[in-house]
Amino acid sequence: MDIALLLTGNELMTGDTVDSNSAMIALALAEHGFNVVYKTTVGDQLNTLVSEIERLSQSYPALIINGGLGPTVDDLTAEAMATAAAIKLVENVQAKSHLQAWCEKRRVELNAANLKQAFLPEGAEVVPNPVGSAVGFCLKLNGCLVMSTPGVPSELKAMLNDAVPECMQKAFPNARSKLIRRLRIFGLGESQLQQLIQDNVSDWPAEVVLGFRVGLPLLELKLEIAEPSDLAKRDACEKCLRDLMGDFIIGENDETLPQVLVDSLVLENKKVALAESCTGGSIAAQITGVAGASKVFETGVVSYSNACKEKVLGVSGALLEEYGAVSAEVAQAMGQGVLKVSGADYAVAVSGIAGPDGGSSEKPVGTVWIAWGSKDAMMAKRFFLPARRSTFQQLVSSIALDLLRRYLQGLNEAPNYFGRN
Amino acid sequence: MDIALLLTGNELMTGDTVDSNSAMIALALAEHGFNVVYKTTVGDQLNTLVSEIERLSQSYPALIINGGLGPTVDDLTAEAMATAAAIKLVENVQAKSHLQAWCEKRRVELNAANLKQAFLPEGAEVVPNPVGSAVGFCLKLNGCLVMSTPGVPSELKAMLNDAVPECMQKAFPNARSKLIRRLRIFGLGESQLQQLIQDNVSDWPAEVVLGFRVGLPLLELKLEIAEPSDLAKRDACEKCLRDLMGDFIIGENDETLPQVLVDSLVLENKKVALAESCTGGSIAAQITGVAGASKVFETGVVSYSNACKEKVLGVSGALLEEYGAVSAEVAQAMGQGVLKVSGADYAVAVSGIAGPDGGSSEKPVGTVWIAWGSKDAMMAKRFFLPARRSTFQQLVSSIALDLLRRYLQGLNEAPNYFGRN
Repeated sequence: MDIALLLTGNELMTGDTVDSNSAMIALALAEHGFNVVYKTTVGDQLNTLVSEIERLSQSYPALIINGGLGPTVDDLTAEAMATAAAIKLVENVQAKSHLQAWCEKRRVELNAANLKQAFLPEGAEVVPNPVGSAVGFCLKLNGCLVMSTPGVPSELKAMLNDAVPECMQKAFPNARSKLIRRLRIFGLGESQLQQLIQDNVSDWPAEVVLGFRVGLPLLELKLEIAEPSDLAKRDACEKCLRDLMGDFIIGENDETLPQVLVDSLVLENKKVALAESCTGGSIAAQITGVAGASKVFETGVVSYSNACKEKVLGVSGALLEEYGAVSAEVAQAMGQGVLKVSGADYAVAVSGIAGPDGGSSEKPVGTVWIAWGSKDAMMAKRFFLPARRSTFQQLVSSIALDLLRRYLQGLNEAPNYFGRN
Repeated sequence: MDIALLLTGNELMTGDTVDSNSAMIALALAEHGFNVVYKTTVGDQLNTLVSEIERLSQSYPALIINGGLGPTVDDLTAEAMATAAAIKLVENVQAKSHLQAWCEKRRVELNAANLKQAFLPEGAEVVPNPVGSAVGFCLKLNGCLVMSTPGVPSELKAMLNDAVPECMQKAFPNARSKLIRRLRIFGLGESQLQQLIQDNVSDWPAEVVLGFRVGLPLLELKLEIAEPSDLAKRDACEKCLRDLMGDFIIGENDETLPQVLVDSLVLENKKVALAESCTGGSIAAQITGVAGASKVFETGVVSYSNACKEKVLGVSGALLEEYGAVSAEVAQAMGQGVLKVSGADYAVAVSGIAGPDGGSSEKPVGTVWIAWGSKDAMMAKRFFLPARRSTFQQLVSSIALDLLRRYLQGLNEAPNYFGRN
């Protein structure tokens, strides 16, 4: 069922606050079959709020308002709702006793500012708030169920667990939950992915809705059905996509490259060590960002200078002299060096030119050698990824993590990431 | 001048993506005198997009559209704009040559999906995108300047620096830029900062608007005036705040802790080395994220295990045995060790327990020792920062960077960060 969202708050207009509430509401309600299809954000002005409530209540069966339930003068949602419905604000018995209990528990006086939160449009139904002082409330307007919810994220979150969906389900008992499957992909660009599907998939069933999401460095494919009877169709679509994307698929749902890697290493009971030049510690930071990484990660060396490559990693000066720091030979020697120092099973080593300075015609900014493997087999491959420094570092880190993922899965060849060579 | 914002993307409706673009747009354009007062978000449906473009173009002098410029079939902004304006989509010469250059630089084929991005409404003016494949464009509709911008945050950000405000200023030469001064603060919490100002500032001039922004790990104070004649008042306010915040102020405008640090080290012609345990390379990643970091950074060691602390950093096994890895003695020895290995002038070393596992009653999760200084004076201080793993790592990294900043500024004492000890 399609629903609308109305957010209010000056801080949302100025950009001083990034709105994460609407995503929270959309995700929580989608599980119960309510899809946010329209969202408006306005500041704390009464007339704007009133006209938006009127407009949206005429177009959607349900409208969720978020924000404006607090004790201060710029909290206007109850007043706006009463104005739109042409009814009075009255002291709501249930809201007042909630406020009294809330104040008692905190041993504070129920002051005038707080008491304002007990005044709701006449006839409004209270939606309990288990955390904060402001209750939510709902009311029918123009045949639309309008539900007001608090803007404090922790209070909203608590209400989305039970009170909000319960109230929605009571009003709309026929709403049906969606069944969603997510595939996460690394190494294909958005247009490549689109082209691949376009060129290879002909008879896609209308019941399976396909969505894309770019969440750098990953791409996400979402397969959505409304009816459990379409599960077989969704499974067939998933198989078709898996055949197409092959080992570019790194996992499902919320999995990330470092998470997948740590899980694989834990399973194999193996350890990895890192020697990073141009990525400057960001591969290590990503791996150690995963809880439990200490089981699989011991040592990382950020060897920015040649001196460090020689002294800490034992790369020979002659090798550096002959091939230069950005070369297969040095990347492989860095990998072998950090394996020796750490006693780890696998290593990844990176040496490249992040820019904006430091490039040459032979090795322009964006050139990088990545080595990966074990003591017995240290592969190396050159990539050319001209991009801004931060994008370059993110891309190289992700490719390095993916090369190790592929190695752990028995795939020793590096693919043409993003269609490049 | 009041303007409206129209965001498009199914991922924004489902809640799969939290919209940070609209905050970025609002902040950037406010500096140039354009205030976002109305914001609508819709999914990727052509008819909805068309009707919103029509509705908003009738109510506001300018409308910024964000998203829907990509190569896939659900990117509909150009088509929606053409439909709303009742004109054709045509291959835009400037957009096409931008695409060709973009592909050439990356050595990829210009495929059909990408070529779609060259088709713009007839007569649209291109708004250059210095980063990505999709150019922006603007067009007048119902007397409203409608400007379409890409949804990829890094591309949007690059365009908000120059191309977007330039185009807006050309269309609205009378819009007046705000005169804004930003102070960036590390080590004070939001409520601390507010209390500090409330308790110490009495006669604040109405012409100087004070704003706060939480941009972890930093806090930002914004001083805004509309008239150049109020500059002296703003300067006086700034001085007042500088006296209050003292050395918690790390810089101005867009400065960050790693940037400030790299600048100071370059100025002094000194080098820093790092020995990281629980921060896992994220201090190194932050420093090397700054362009030119190679001048001041040589070596970082991510010494997750005791074996690595001994072998690479030369921390004695006896010291580890006696005090444990998370101790002043070991943190200081790690700092001295990495100074010796690298030959750097200064070092920061970190040893702590990020969790969720690994704590004890004596050293619970959230305990961390940070050492900082030089060969002759290596300070160390214990912090207790119980938080989620990622927050802990971010906080510890930031404190470590700040301790070195203070050291370089001749402040050897660590403050009570965030009012804690």
